[in-house]
Amino acid sequence: MSWQSAAKVYADSVTNLLQTALDEYPNLPGNLKEAMTYSLFAGGKRVRPFLVLAIGEMFKVPEDKLLTYAAALECVHTYSLIHDDLPAMDDDHLRRGKPTCHVIYGEATAILAGDALQTLAFELISHSDSLRATEALQAIKVLSRASGLAGMCGGQAVDLHQAGKHTDKQALEQMHRMKTGALLNASIMYPGHLASLTKAQHLQLQQFADAVGLGFQVMDDILDVEGDTAQLGKPQGSDAEAEKSTYPVLMGLEGAKEYLQQLHNEATQALQSLPYNSETLLSFTDYLFSRNH
Amino acid sequence: MSWQSAAKVYADSVTNLLQTALDEYPNLPGNLKEAMTYSLFAGGKRVRPFLVLAIGEMFKVPEDKLLTYAAALECVHTYSLIHDDLPAMDDDHLRRGKPTCHVIYGEATAILAGDALQTLAFELISHSDSLRATEALQAIKVLSRASGLAGMCGGQAVDLHQAGKHTDKQALEQMHRMKTGALLNASIMYPGHLASLTKAQHLQLQQFADAVGLGFQVMDDILDVEGDTAQLGKPQGSDAEAEKSTYPVLMGLEGAKEYLQQLHNEATQALQSLPYNSETLLSFTDYLFSRNH
Repeated sequence: MSWQSAAKVYADSVTNLLQTALDEYPNLPGNLKEAMTYSLFAGGKRVRPFLVLAIGEMFKVPEDKLLTYAAALECVHTYSLIHDDLPAMDDDHLRRGKPTCHVIYGEATAILAGDALQTLAFELISHSDSLRATEALQAIKVLSRASGLAGMCGGQAVDLHQAGKHTDKQALEQMHRMKTGALLNASIMYPGHLASLTKAQHLQLQQFADAVGLGFQVMDDILDVEGDTAQLGKPQGSDAEAEKSTYPVLMGLEGAKEYLQQLHNEATQALQSLPYNSETLLSFTDYLFSRNH
Repeated sequence: MSWQSAAKVYADSVTNLLQTALDEYPNLPGNLKEAMTYSLFAGGKRVRPFLVLAIGEMFKVPEDKLLTYAAALECVHTYSLIHDDLPAMDDDHLRRGKPTCHVIYGEATAILAGDALQTLAFELISHSDSLRATEALQAIKVLSRASGLAGMCGGQAVDLHQAGKHTDKQALEQMHRMKTGALLNASIMYPGHLASLTKAQHLQLQQFADAVGLGFQVMDDILDVEGDTAQLGKPQGSDAEAEKSTYPVLMGLEGAKEYLQQLHNEATQALQSLPYNSETLLSFTDYLFSRNH
């Protein structure tokens, strides 16, 4: 099966789970549930669920042990996008080619939609019928550690702090490891926890996670310089406008592309060193490192 | 021991746990951790931790089974205050007599501080050494259900939606049951889950929770009319200014006071019907229903 076909199957499973979960909530006055639904189903690439489910499949972990976790990751990712787009943060009006949540529902509802999506992530995992208590708790440990002060939220705070300031490659990487890397790492490493990996295999998976986490960001930075607004679904050049430190700024565009190639090689080698069928993941990795949006 | 002495002991235990937890995080560029710390230790009354720990003590549940949960509730409560105070929400500049989080740290950091405090709640419970997996998971189930779309966040969205609109007592109570009642209910009922209550005792505890949940809000509404800005720590009259439906608006000030008395009686009777030493909780309930801030 091509990675695109696998991605569609995974995305559909996650969409069904999320839609079923939201359907169970009553419709309240106001439009909080609508705002959550809008952003959850606004055409995201479902990269994190793909990684969870494809790595799980590679390691032969049953899908019902991972589906709720994959959906929860998407809830956390979506909440972070809603809050990052707010006027007080990045003030973005366009995301995935559509108006951002606060543009449609107003700032107050967008803040609450992000809040409630974060809660939903932990609610979904803790209420899952497919997981033993120890499994659910481990998933919540990993997800909360990756998304809080030591992970995603902390990284976003550092990013805001560094805007307009000179920063070096080490500080930039530290920030990205937290801001986007931590959640990608949680997507990749958690299925590994459920498989019986050797220590060496665990390290290889970690190398893959590290390379993908950084590569994802280097690619984003290059696309912000070279991409096309229509394909990106958001305004090209917004990093420069926000005076953000990026890999092209620090290394030059060619230097950033060479670094991307190096990370791509590292990711590929790490996957190939694992004694599992990594074909789908290899193709997906090629896509991640050459995407145009 | 008076409830005031008990409250001090409980508050100190929760403060220590939270301070220790925050100390374990590295200091990052920017001031996210400072903003979280500021709001967590801004002089809150720690009502929810008190309820958790006093009810646990009444039922002889070991404190180490409840302390992390009590601290997590305070994280969720604090995050909700930070976000509710934002310009896009209630636009409050003063809370507990101090400038609100966004006034000091800016909106972006305040949004992130709320986000990271919510995450911290689930991180604390899932990483607790004092809880078995089933206990931690049950705590996360209760807390997430109480604070998400079906609870606190949903209630805040309904409240925002109803501002400036005519609403009846039933709709007002439904909103308050979600916005503040759900978290108070989670504070009161969770220690009951850990005790071996009979079905009748469980119902009596639920009656106490219902009366306290509503009474807390009726008292808040009365204080907003009659209270003193200095004692309240926030501007008196802010509900009227925001054209919010309140109990005094719907029932008249005297009607609201009679309703408060009725709820006070219900809470007291429910507590007294439980075959446990409820002395501390009874005094605390008297305080809750007669406080001046």
